[in-house]
Amino acid sequence: MSIGQSIPRVDAFEKVTGRAKYTADLTDRNALVAKVLHSTIANGLVRKIDTGEAEKIPGVIKILSCFDVPDIEFPTAGHPWSTNPAHQDPTDRKLLNKRVRLYGDDIAAVIAEDEVAASRALNAIKVEYDEYPALLSPEEAMAEGAPLLHENCPNNILKHTLIEDGDFEEAIREPGLLRFDSVYETPIVQHCHIEPVVSFAYMEAGRIVVVSSTQIPHIVRRIVAQALGLPWGKVRIIKPYIGGGFGNKQDALYEPLNAFLTQAVGGRPVRLELSREEIFYATRVRHAEKIFLSSWVRPNGRIVARSYRALSNQGAYGSHGHGIAAKGTNVFRQLYQDEKARKTEFFTVYTNTATAGAMRGYGTPQALFAVESHIEELSLRLGLDPLEFRFMNVMPVGWQDPFTKNINYFDSFHQCVEKGRAYIGWDEKRKLYRNQNGPLRRGIGMSLFWYNTAVWPISIEISACRMILNQDGSVQVQLGETEIGQGADTVFTQLTADTLGIPWQNVHVNSTQDTDITPYGSGAYGSRQTYVGGAAIKQTASLLKQKILLYAHEYTRMPVENLDIIDAVIVLTSGNNRPLMSLAELATETLYSEQKAEHLTAEGTAQVKTNAFSFGCSFAEIEVDIPMAKLRLLNLINVHDAGRIINPQTAGGQVHGGMSMSIGYGMFEEFKYDPKTGRLLNGNFLDYKLPTTLDHPRLEAQFVENWEPTSVFGTKALGEPPAVPCAPAIRNALLNATGVAVNRIPLTPHVLFEEFKKAGLIN
Amino acid sequence: MSIGQSIPRVDAFEKVTGRAKYTADLTDRNALVAKVLHSTIANGLVRKIDTGEAEKIPGVIKILSCFDVPDIEFPTAGHPWSTNPAHQDPTDRKLLNKRVRLYGDDIAAVIAEDEVAASRALNAIKVEYDEYPALLSPEEAMAEGAPLLHENCPNNILKHTLIEDGDFEEAIREPGLLRFDSVYETPIVQHCHIEPVVSFAYMEAGRIVVVSSTQIPHIVRRIVAQALGLPWGKVRIIKPYIGGGFGNKQDALYEPLNAFLTQAVGGRPVRLELSREEIFYATRVRHAEKIFLSSWVRPNGRIVARSYRALSNQGAYGSHGHGIAAKGTNVFRQLYQDEKARKTEFFTVYTNTATAGAMRGYGTPQALFAVESHIEELSLRLGLDPLEFRFMNVMPVGWQDPFTKNINYFDSFHQCVEKGRAYIGWDEKRKLYRNQNGPLRRGIGMSLFWYNTAVWPISIEISACRMILNQDGSVQVQLGETEIGQGADTVFTQLTADTLGIPWQNVHVNSTQDTDITPYGSGAYGSRQTYVGGAAIKQTASLLKQKILLYAHEYTRMPVENLDIIDAVIVLTSGNNRPLMSLAELATETLYSEQKAEHLTAEGTAQVKTNAFSFGCSFAEIEVDIPMAKLRLLNLINVHDAGRIINPQTAGGQVHGGMSMSIGYGMFEEFKYDPKTGRLLNGNFLDYKLPTTLDHPRLEAQFVENWEPTSVFGTKALGEPPAVPCAPAIRNALLNATGVAVNRIPLTPHVLFEEFKKAGLIN
Repeated sequence: MSIGQSIPRVDAFEKVTGRAKYTADLTDRNALVAKVLHSTIANGLVRKIDTGEAEKIPGVIKILSCFDVPDIEFPTAGHPWSTNPAHQDPTDRKLLNKRVRLYGDDIAAVIAEDEVAASRALNAIKVEYDEYPALLSPEEAMAEGAPLLHENCPNNILKHTLIEDGDFEEAIREPGLLRFDSVYETPIVQHCHIEPVVSFAYMEAGRIVVVSSTQIPHIVRRIVAQALGLPWGKVRIIKPYIGGGFGNKQDALYEPLNAFLTQAVGGRPVRLELSREEIFYATRVRHAEKIFLSSWVRPNGRIVARSYRALSNQGAYGSHGHGIAAKGTNVFRQLYQDEKARKTEFFTVYTNTATAGAMRGYGTPQALFAVESHIEELSLRLGLDPLEFRFMNVMPVGWQDPFTKNINYFDSFHQCVEKGRAYIGWDEKRKLYRNQNGPLRRGIGMSLFWYNTAVWPISIEISACRMILNQDGSVQVQLGETEIGQGADTVFTQLTADTLGIPWQNVHVNSTQDTDITPYGSGAYGSRQTYVGGAAIKQTASLLKQKILLYAHEYTRMPVENLDIIDAVIVLTSGNNRPLMSLAELATETLYSEQKAEHLTAEGTAQVKTNAFSFGCSFAEIEVDIPMAKLRLLNLINVHDAGRIINPQTAGGQVHGGMSMSIGYGMFEEFKYDPKTGRLLNGNFLDYKLPTTLDHPRLEAQFVENWEPTSVFGTKALGEPPAVPCAPAIRNALLNATGVAVNRIPLTPHVLFEEFKKAGLIN
Repeated sequence: MSIGQSIPRVDAFEKVTGRAKYTADLTDRNALVAKVLHSTIANGLVRKIDTGEAEKIPGVIKILSCFDVPDIEFPTAGHPWSTNPAHQDPTDRKLLNKRVRLYGDDIAAVIAEDEVAASRALNAIKVEYDEYPALLSPEEAMAEGAPLLHENCPNNILKHTLIEDGDFEEAIREPGLLRFDSVYETPIVQHCHIEPVVSFAYMEAGRIVVVSSTQIPHIVRRIVAQALGLPWGKVRIIKPYIGGGFGNKQDALYEPLNAFLTQAVGGRPVRLELSREEIFYATRVRHAEKIFLSSWVRPNGRIVARSYRALSNQGAYGSHGHGIAAKGTNVFRQLYQDEKARKTEFFTVYTNTATAGAMRGYGTPQALFAVESHIEELSLRLGLDPLEFRFMNVMPVGWQDPFTKNINYFDSFHQCVEKGRAYIGWDEKRKLYRNQNGPLRRGIGMSLFWYNTAVWPISIEISACRMILNQDGSVQVQLGETEIGQGADTVFTQLTADTLGIPWQNVHVNSTQDTDITPYGSGAYGSRQTYVGGAAIKQTASLLKQKILLYAHEYTRMPVENLDIIDAVIVLTSGNNRPLMSLAELATETLYSEQKAEHLTAEGTAQVKTNAFSFGCSFAEIEVDIPMAKLRLLNLINVHDAGRIINPQTAGGQVHGGMSMSIGYGMFEEFKYDPKTGRLLNGNFLDYKLPTTLDHPRLEAQFVENWEPTSVFGTKALGEPPAVPCAPAIRNALLNATGVAVNRIPLTPHVLFEEFKKAGLIN
């Protein structure tokens, strides 16, 4: 059995030696180069575009502007299509936009022979605008009289939801309750995948082919067709290896425009690669949220009622929209359970900042920062131990979510916390770090977390798979689920090998998705791939095995029920697993049989109608230099119950990467806009501070393996959860060290200086 | 219905605009370049290879010689594997050969950074040989004391077969029989495909990938693995568009060596492209044959018995070997039927000329030249009309071949001859051209032909297919059967469209075969693809349709038996074909259904255990300039009964191309060797005379459509037959014009001068 073993990544050699081919490597040598002209105002209207001078530049092939594109508004979010209009994503942008909604909106595109000609042409295009004031926050955008970004959205509110569980007004009238209010703010941050947003497109027999660095090839196919007004079968998307996505590439970014551009030049290949700067302002970001939390608690620590009000900054276009803020509210509504009632309200609001979309955690990092900061303060104010206080109110074992039907089967929270508590030395250090008063102080803090696995019942969850038996008994696997650097192909290899009873070395996962031939899978998002793709693998491998054993029955005459495959050999289970014939022999005979030849393959679609809770916690230890207003991270552990762990090494890698993102989120990263023009000021790797190894302590990842009952292989979400809990754990450690409750991230010296001053720690 | 319509070739636009990607277009820009060192003797042993100087040349990466290759002898013929050793192809060559068997044998290979370094290195390698005399004909090779090319083949005979039908000795004793003997000789010729033999190879995750211009990707996969001693699943072959093959690429040519070379440099990409000169001497050719024919005939024209003895020149290595001569003998044994008995004997003999393999017609052009020349002379000598004489002895309607079980269902020969006779003006011109005696004389001649379809029961005949329903109701098709320029993808498109009931524009055949994911198909040879691939398409499309109609039943509640698809709409057949829903709606709903979602695909293997006769004839009119000994072709028609014609235009194209090849075979082409050294003297397009449009009259192609009863779509062989009958028709026209029976081709002025002199037409 390979499951549970740290087999080497199946793509390791290719990637380490630089041989793995990415989109840019595959681009036709003769491809034309496209570049996008971005608006230099944040809010307004393009009145006129003069391309006269630009068109004269040698090497310029064609210039297309927002006045030339089809009058089609299309969605970009990477969700499977729903035939129910109520479940469809916002359709609010064209291929190029006359109505400018962010500084850097796409208003024209140049196609040229080379980069230089394209760049020169961009500089030579003259644009005239009508300019409106830049609306950079939900509050500004919702204000009376603010210009509307999208006509059908009054007050620039894309969507507003209010949910009341229980009788809230009645609940808070209970005598003796203590009330706590706080407001939390999270920044706009970016995914910062290494490989840029890049694609190239060409036409083939009247159809458009886009090769793209995307997480969701099958979905991008649909969106490109929608954007261009084509039948969906007229579009083909190919996804090679990709260098990270983290949710940014769970959107159709520039594939639709790239498709349109090749169409405009009769199908000649056109490459569209964004610079790092463009990626910052013109792709997707994580929604900044402002969250108002209030709690009504009994003095003994039982929470009776809470209210939550969030303003989610959508930026210029709809993308994943309201679903992100909605998913965040699940943290509020489920992680801790109010005894009586709960009020949840959230607004997703268009502004003139970068379009917010999916990013690892999908609304949860924001909400969890608020919820876990708030719970920590409550415990302090109540004089209760933060762990005890949490467990008094946390989702109980056996609880079932009425919407997803998820059940909290095990006592995962306690099990995870025990591991984290032991590793960090919680009990000793909580004592040790009491009553510090020097300039350097230490603290420890923690955060629980919770996450869903896959997206049912919000969207359909299907994954199709095809397997092919080679003549040597090895197997090819095709899945629509995508390797995006996370190690999916390695895990798929293990699941296939064990289901079929063959060594993992005999499984070859076809890593390239090509919508012309790859079975449908929604792609890499929602921490769904091992859970949903695993179901497809189990179903398909079982079907293939059944076909194999029927042939084995023909060849060996033994009852099919008494046969099995162990280590690539057909064995007689009723006879001490006596070997009967090798799978290789069977495969060769079956393909070339004069009697009945068959190319043995299996294919099918698995539909998953469950969802599962992943759980865990993060513990952080920090040191703060109060005069310097500077934080140093000393120690960090994440403990995950992600169900059964298929590959401990790649699982650890997932957790390390997520912890790093969460450190950046808590301590370093944020978009800074010029408040007047709406121009992004730090959209590059010099000014936007990503954490590096120098900012990381040893990242400890531990697991609790409660095999998930709803999952074919006992697995559940691991892709996104690691990126969620570290920021609040660090923030709570700071509170522990200093007594200062900082309610906004990142915890940069600028913020700490202000907060320490306010608290009297700095004069 | 699209069948029977000349829909445009589905690859026309790509190919005409130069956009279609061939192997060379796809080669990695950084690929290393490999070149092969060919022997400069025809027969002998490599004693020593000194690569010292060559290795010092800058840019040279590695040099491998016949002393470095695995000790594995492998087969190269493009046949499906047989698990029965008696049906396996000769295994008689290594990747590089110490034992040199032709002038130009592969003895070493250079891998370098670029072409220049590789070429310089080739020149700097020093080789010492033991040289034996060059054996250039079967007679020389079979002579007592001739050195053996392959140790296990006494007298250099690869294989010898003798078949007696009836009691031959008894039959020829019948009193009053007239006996006629003659000897026919056909030349070595080459396929002369436009695209060279080219491949590139690299390694990926421990497996070898070869991208190659081949007709038979799935077979090449097996051979590469055999040659390198690898499990077959460790090899992946990708076949892009190819620029012709005609049987040369129905062999594993340099793919095994290319695979070995990338392995030798740790999997770096290596390109191996042959020059035109190398293709001539070092790939495959058509077997030259010398055929001894004798007939015993009653004066009334009934043939009583015949004997056939053929020497087939195999050249240096086994390749397709004895099967080619064997297939030729079917012409002798089946086209005309002896009343009493028949003796058939044939030898396939190794010599030191180019390796002979498959070429369009597969042994039939040689045998048919002999048989149809012989029958023509017999009719003359008997004073009978050649058409009447033929029909007196030709395979009768209703006759069944006891081996293949093929039946001659229709009176195709008469039907075809009537068309040819009318078009060429046979009756008038046979009269008109009597008793000519000027220097310019005209004549008409004809030839019947017969050909098998596909290769059962010689080999297994299987073809697997997969179809995928796109969300817009269009369909992807994957087949192992290969488009090699003949129009297969267009025909596959039509067959799929009509079976499913959708417009052909909604069918997208995936033209690239990739053995990792493409269903198994043996590939393009044996005129099998429409017949066998058609069966796979019918089976798969029917299965897909059945799945579609079951969903249609779910959505419409109508009985599935009352539903059909017409023009991409689900209709109620019992209700006047009332439209119920579009296939596009059904496809979208089925993929995204919350209740039961499925990516609708279908896949399966069709095994064909029949074979079918194709029939036809060729009529030629020529003018001969006797003093100049020069032939001019005035008029040429082929009439084919290839069953139902799927696409008249592409069918006509097939016939035109074949006629052109047969003209070259009859009039221009032959390999000329230096008799002493065995060096090919005319292996280039300057000295090897391919016919051009200037040598062609209008090529008339006509069809008789007797739908083949054994065929799923009524089709039978059309790929190869056109290349078979023109040479004897032209030769018989020359006989008609001059009375001179020339028994060897090509009919060049050199030959005609000699023959006319012998006949006293030239002094």
